[in-house]
Amino acid sequence: MPTLSTTASQPPKLVLEGNKWVVEYQHNQPNLKIDETNMKHTVYIYKCTNSTIRIVGKVNSIVLDSCTKVGLQFDSVVSLVEFINCKSTKLQVIDFVPTIQIEKTDGCHIYLSKKSLQTEFITSKSSEMTVNVPFGDGEYREIPVPEQFKTKLNPGEKSLTTVPNESAGV
Amino acid sequence: MPTLSTTASQPPKLVLEGNKWVVEYQHNQPNLKIDETNMKHTVYIYKCTNSTIRIVGKVNSIVLDSCTKVGLQFDSVVSLVEFINCKSTKLQVIDFVPTIQIEKTDGCHIYLSKKSLQTEFITSKSSEMTVNVPFGDGEYREIPVPEQFKTKLNPGEKSLTTVPNESAGV
Repeated sequence: MPTLSTTASQPPKLVLEGNKWVVEYQHNQPNLKIDETNMKHTVYIYKCTNSTIRIVGKVNSIVLDSCTKVGLQFDSVVSLVEFINCKSTKLQVIDFVPTIQIEKTDGCHIYLSKKSLQTEFITSKSSEMTVNVPFGDGEYREIPVPEQFKTKLNPGEKSLTTVPNESAGV
Repeated sequence: MPTLSTTASQPPKLVLEGNKWVVEYQHNQPNLKIDETNMKHTVYIYKCTNSTIRIVGKVNSIVLDSCTKVGLQFDSVVSLVEFINCKSTKLQVIDFVPTIQIEKTDGCHIYLSKKSLQTEFITSKSSEMTVNVPFGDGEYREIPVPEQFKTKLNPGEKSLTTVPNESAGV
């Protein structure tokens, strides 16, 4: 039955609800793709595992919630990309995003584009994060994002100073 | 039966194993106390809830692991006090501790002594932390410990700068 077999190997059709693309409970899908996008669209990716999602064009924002081993590649995002409650994720920025927020996530490896070197990262309660900066001919320099911090009272004891802990893993 | 009733209201006897005091699975015990201590002793408090533990004298280190709603009060610690996987904890330093480490913990309120204002706090993957600084006559000033951070690439794109995010909760 060649028709059935062909259908089974196609990635599932993703659904647009109003201005929100919802990608839920996708497992072992290496070729998920959203390509009918515009700047009003948001993308919400929830409880996916072992999958890769490609978002073509420019969208407003992307949220990955409770995903494990998910790769995300997108062209452009107007406001922010957010990871929350994820494990072992990868993100490739093709064009540009102003802000990437990472919360309660272990394993988040961000590959920036040459146009997106000023992306701001907002992190909390997360570990194993790296920023990968393109240089030369398709190579990347990996820089770890601090995950442990050192805090001391300032003289006068009315405020604190907090800095990344260089000897992390103490 | 007055004898039985008196026995039931006594806190459980805590156990010293070698140089390690182990306080495990204690629930709703407001008056736990360890008072036969010396500088070689470590204290390991595990899976306790709704309890308060008082440690008299000077010990080497104290670890609170997987505790909820636990209050700890101690005189002096030689190396460090560590919180890991805890929720809603309080700590009062009567005399001195050089380092307090807080990991994977939500809710950790530290009350310092006037002799321990230079305590260093090492934090990771934690939230709702405060340092409370004594002033005047038994009053405390509460200062929140940063839990969200902002990271950007430095010029040259070979390193990152990470600072506490002032507008936390973005």
